[in-house]
Amino acid sequence: MPGKRIGKQTVKLQNPPSIISGAAIVGKKEGEGPLRTYFDNIIEDEKWGEKTWEKTESKLIRETLALILSKAGKSAGDINYIIAGDLLNQCIAANFGLRESGVPFLGVYGACSTMAESMSIGSILIDGGFADNLVCLTSSHFCSAEKQFRFPLELGSQRPPSAQWTVTGAGGVLLSNQGAGPYITHVTTGKIIDMGIKDANNMGGAMAPAAADTIMVHFKDTGLSPDSYDLIVTGDLGSIGREICDELLKIEGININDRFNDCGLMIFDTKKQDVNAGGSGCGCSACVFSGFIFQEMQKGSLNEVLFVATGALLSPISTQQGESIPCIAHAVSISRSL
Amino acid sequence: MPGKRIGKQTVKLQNPPSIISGAAIVGKKEGEGPLRTYFDNIIEDEKWGEKTWEKTESKLIRETLALILSKAGKSAGDINYIIAGDLLNQCIAANFGLRESGVPFLGVYGACSTMAESMSIGSILIDGGFADNLVCLTSSHFCSAEKQFRFPLELGSQRPPSAQWTVTGAGGVLLSNQGAGPYITHVTTGKIIDMGIKDANNMGGAMAPAAADTIMVHFKDTGLSPDSYDLIVTGDLGSIGREICDELLKIEGININDRFNDCGLMIFDTKKQDVNAGGSGCGCSACVFSGFIFQEMQKGSLNEVLFVATGALLSPISTQQGESIPCIAHAVSISRSL
Repeated sequence: MPGKRIGKQTVKLQNPPSIISGAAIVGKKEGEGPLRTYFDNIIEDEKWGEKTWEKTESKLIRETLALILSKAGKSAGDINYIIAGDLLNQCIAANFGLRESGVPFLGVYGACSTMAESMSIGSILIDGGFADNLVCLTSSHFCSAEKQFRFPLELGSQRPPSAQWTVTGAGGVLLSNQGAGPYITHVTTGKIIDMGIKDANNMGGAMAPAAADTIMVHFKDTGLSPDSYDLIVTGDLGSIGREICDELLKIEGININDRFNDCGLMIFDTKKQDVNAGGSGCGCSACVFSGFIFQEMQKGSLNEVLFVATGALLSPISTQQGESIPCIAHAVSISRSL
Repeated sequence: MPGKRIGKQTVKLQNPPSIISGAAIVGKKEGEGPLRTYFDNIIEDEKWGEKTWEKTESKLIRETLALILSKAGKSAGDINYIIAGDLLNQCIAANFGLRESGVPFLGVYGACSTMAESMSIGSILIDGGFADNLVCLTSSHFCSAEKQFRFPLELGSQRPPSAQWTVTGAGGVLLSNQGAGPYITHVTTGKIIDMGIKDANNMGGAMAPAAADTIMVHFKDTGLSPDSYDLIVTGDLGSIGREICDELLKIEGININDRFNDCGLMIFDTKKQDVNAGGSGCGCSACVFSGFIFQEMQKGSLNEVLFVATGALLSPISTQQGESIPCIAHAVSISRSL
């Protein structure tokens, strides 16, 4: 019987889907970071031959899908669903990037939690027998995001130390009811948490309580503990948010510090690459997962990973209207073997 | 065994979820339309005591959720997931409207197809045993949508005859693994279709091929025919899109004309209410479904309905960049009894 609910927010998969391929295409700056060897393609500039940043982001999605399929030896006709979204207004990176795919499409919006949200829905679809193969995919682009959420790049606005750097990149995975792992074993779906933080330049700080809540609920629902994992990885809290999340969990008696990392701190060398508090954007956790984590799990250097993507569910309009920042974090457990 | 895939894009539910409650709150103009008696609340003006249209839209979502729960005799703690989204950038109506709910949240973006997308995902979650009760919900607001997608309202811009009028309203349903129907029996997930139409003032025309494609695929996958339904209802093609969809299906030898209606033509009196080609917006099909269709199915005046919500996956930026309009339509079959 698939779909065993355990606890308030978690599903334990009875037919855990296997991640059979992953791909990530990133920008130049990400290609100069510590994970550069894990990415499939590093584009030469922010346009990649397109006329606009938005069209580039759609191309990132389109080409990443092509890589995911070819690595798995699949064609679009083998795929039952694509579950994707992005940060752009009305999710146009995904909508335009996937319009030629011909695959049934479920659009999701979870801000930077999108990768984990799409993997959550995807895992459930496979587990329940609703799909044999599907793709979970997301993207972000530094220039299209800055333009939309902050200031025109041409202004050269100064960024406070708590600001994060939106990753240019698309990443995704193919989930299948066949395959030799790594397997998605649990899905913990987050609830919206708004602690009243209003500083849109400190999204890591705003998101930390949502990440802590989901991690705590995950342990409570599953009976697992930090020791159950080699790596607990959030995306994207950055340096400030990571510290707050760590503290919040310690107050609850949960110490994950020795196995806790954040995708925003992994994709860049935060000391040398001038990214302030670290990377962000849906593409950040998507590329770190689909590149680094997936490959290290295949190699066996990582065996059990809790992937917790975090999203700040604000918009420039909500900030202008004086609103605080509602946040969410979704977690998926991935195990190298069953 | 849940999750039987039939054909390319359809799932036949083995444990069909029951729709146990529905609610809709609409604006003044919608409350003057032919379906006025089916709505739970008609707000007196476009602000409803809030300072901004966006906050009003969040309030529509919040209050509609409260009604859905109270009509079902449930509390938020009984609900395993809320699946919701809206048209606003970064889906802030749903994100802010649901932030106090404390319920695990899956954000979706399907433009005006959102209601059917959320019901599709929701049905699968119930069918597979991943949830016992969940809520599917969406909204739109004439003023927040006009401001975001078109022109400042204060300009008083003239609207071409093909333009549609964004509905102010939120609607939603509670799906459960218990209950006496109506039941969701099939889910047909659409693929993105872009026929090259670039006129953002003729979204009905742009969406018609996606609606026709999903309806055609639904019949092919299921072996059902137009005769299997009392009502095949799209949302929101308006008068122009409805006619194109009807024609496209006739070319394929499928005649649905005598049982084909469109939520955008049902919610307003298009002859008297100055809405040009009809209503639109996620809230349109959500309110027509959660109000009129659900109540008529409960009464037994409708027995078998194919609900096909359609979305235009564009943004103002994509239009400014000369792009055409990718569209999608998702269908769910609803049956009064099993």
